[in-house]
Amino acid sequence: MPVTEIPPRSGAAFRLARGQVLTVIDPEGMQVSDLLAYSAEDVREVISNGRTFDYEETIALTTGARLWSNRSRVMLTIVEDSVGRHDFLLTPCSEATFRHFYPDQPVHRGCFGNLAEALAPFGVEPDMIPCAFNVFMNVPVAADGKLRVDPPVSKPGDHLRLRAEMDLIIGLTACSAYASNGGSFKPIHYSIDGGQHPQE
Amino acid sequence: MPVTEIPPRSGAAFRLARGQVLTVIDPEGMQVSDLLAYSAEDVREVISNGRTFDYEETIALTTGARLWSNRSRVMLTIVEDSVGRHDFLLTPCSEATFRHFYPDQPVHRGCFGNLAEALAPFGVEPDMIPCAFNVFMNVPVAADGKLRVDPPVSKPGDHLRLRAEMDLIIGLTACSAYASNGGSFKPIHYSIDGGQHPQE
Repeated sequence: MPVTEIPPRSGAAFRLARGQVLTVIDPEGMQVSDLLAYSAEDVREVISNGRTFDYEETIALTTGARLWSNRSRVMLTIVEDSVGRHDFLLTPCSEATFRHFYPDQPVHRGCFGNLAEALAPFGVEPDMIPCAFNVFMNVPVAADGKLRVDPPVSKPGDHLRLRAEMDLIIGLTACSAYASNGGSFKPIHYSIDGGQHPQE
Repeated sequence: MPVTEIPPRSGAAFRLARGQVLTVIDPEGMQVSDLLAYSAEDVREVISNGRTFDYEETIALTTGARLWSNRSRVMLTIVEDSVGRHDFLLTPCSEATFRHFYPDQPVHRGCFGNLAEALAPFGVEPDMIPCAFNVFMNVPVAADGKLRVDPPVSKPGDHLRLRAEMDLIIGLTACSAYASNGGSFKPIHYSIDGGQHPQE
């Protein structure tokens, strides 16, 4: 199946039909990809970390886990995971988070800005961007609740495969932040198989 | 200051002006209150667990912690906390969660339905209800990421005080779920001090 590249520090949005499988690939290793999902029928239905934590009863989401919408419907099922370490706690970085966390470095619009631009043609406004499912992102939670952002443990070619359980609009990025990917900006690859090929 | 009661399994919504302090009280102990906050100027700006986890760098939020909006602005600061145990991972229970978790018990619209009704006059639609800050809710995260919902550790009269850092619309409930409050449905009390009294 053809592989599409998301260049470093950018994002894409595309349709994913029910039954199709999206493979998110980390071609060089140690890179993060923020994933959003909206119902193709009504983009007010959106992926929800809280509903997912409710129904899966864990914050550690890997093979077999389902990603749920704010309307309590399953949007995606993780069908294969060569890494086993992802994050669903933190929101996509934006200009504001760059100013906060990297005051001495150039500001970037981050995955938030990249997702907002890519999703705008589908009717998604910036305020409709919730917590993303942060593929390959490594955020350990300490016993006292404190969070760290560590480099991903993904190696070149590692991947995550997700099956669409409804017709979706997907937003997907190659991470732009300094900490999340160990300080290097790399591309993300993805491919889609099953059913008809989606419209970009 | 006058205390308002939220009856068991119900909710309320009200204005909280910048500088006012909201006190959420558990009058009988072991009860949960779901709290939502929206900018009074534009209800598309809303409390965000992900942005809060970003900036506070912890999921354990207590005195001194700030609760942030999806637009990276501080909405509320926790100024006093006699419990020290709250949850910001799980979404308000709805009819769907009742059917899922309590298939043998009567369905209830839950805090989600109560919040949706109370917030509707302010222009908040059900799809605009994100993860609530669940005051007194006790959700331990195990080392492997698994979540439990334990009875609250709050005792009669325990409270949480939050200062509004912008003009807000607040949604607040007395929990309706079976597990969250140890199986008993109790009221929640709240009071507001500082500045002019808000309109209900």
